[in-house]
Amino acid sequence: MPITFVTGNLNKLREFQAIVEDSSIVHQKIDLEEIQGSIAEISTKKAKAAANAIGGPVLVEDTCLVFNALSKPNLELPGPYIKWFLDSLGVEGLPKLLSGFEDKSAQAVCTFAYCEGPGCEVKLFQGVNDGIIVDVPRYNGDSPFGWDPIFQPNGYKQTYGEMDKSLKNTISHRYKALVLVKKFLHDN
Amino acid sequence: MPITFVTGNLNKLREFQAIVEDSSIVHQKIDLEEIQGSIAEISTKKAKAAANAIGGPVLVEDTCLVFNALSKPNLELPGPYIKWFLDSLGVEGLPKLLSGFEDKSAQAVCTFAYCEGPGCEVKLFQGVNDGIIVDVPRYNGDSPFGWDPIFQPNGYKQTYGEMDKSLKNTISHRYKALVLVKKFLHDN
Repeated sequence: MPITFVTGNLNKLREFQAIVEDSSIVHQKIDLEEIQGSIAEISTKKAKAAANAIGGPVLVEDTCLVFNALSKPNLELPGPYIKWFLDSLGVEGLPKLLSGFEDKSAQAVCTFAYCEGPGCEVKLFQGVNDGIIVDVPRYNGDSPFGWDPIFQPNGYKQTYGEMDKSLKNTISHRYKALVLVKKFLHDN
Repeated sequence: MPITFVTGNLNKLREFQAIVEDSSIVHQKIDLEEIQGSIAEISTKKAKAAANAIGGPVLVEDTCLVFNALSKPNLELPGPYIKWFLDSLGVEGLPKLLSGFEDKSAQAVCTFAYCEGPGCEVKLFQGVNDGIIVDVPRYNGDSPFGWDPIFQPNGYKQTYGEMDKSLKNTISHRYKALVLVKKFLHDN
């Protein structure tokens, strides 16, 4: 049975296929509930739910933005909840969450979770980029993409939102996670 | 079949019994996963899961702290996630989330959810107190209780953490929700 990448996002699918280069992987959109908890708990639970729904091997993906000043180990904040804060505050409002904190460092985290089928253990593949949250969003183009305009990875003077896509896609947290997924699929 | 109040917290159970005055209600501790979403979605889902687990009528409870500057309708923040932020930042750190915002207003929200049994609709009973988040925690006694030291309800000069328990328990968001629950149980 082929592996199903469970996603409703065609851009993610295309990026996945371009990097992983495994044409046997199919995709499907399933609405999966997300629980509260650590990144690892949420991804594990989501992969298990997807494996149950599909009845076979699945990959699921999660992307988070962790503000280090707000977080502690296994309790990443806003972390998995970044999408809700982005939705409510907009990308201009997000940096204000850190106004009261000196530490502006952050981690962009992409987690792929693989589960072979119902009842099977879940394997996690994580790509992490360390960086900082900039006070004022900076991006190219007409409209910002997610929280890209406020995350500046260490070693670069541009935010994700300012980078050429071709650069971002070879240094990003997502890219790093996909390299691990590719290696795993190749070795198995 | 009696109604089961699903909680592992004996203090909540005692307060429930004292206010609702219905000795037929039993209680049980069940570990219920909490999903991400609005207060209403989380409470509804939790009540349904509890009704499935018990196989009969249940009540579940959720308490949230909503910072109005971070929220929009049906997207209460930190809201249901306040427990994680409290855990990571401590009660001294929580007000710093609002440093960058002028609006320090907040809502303490207690939601009881009733579900008669598997597959049944869920009824919500909500008690809300408007107030403000104070910069520096204030409380009586040796150790702070939850986020009580930073929430000052409108019309009072004391935070929940400074109030006599006897006062707090007759004005609180929890009390207001329980009054609605009591009325519902009485009428049905």
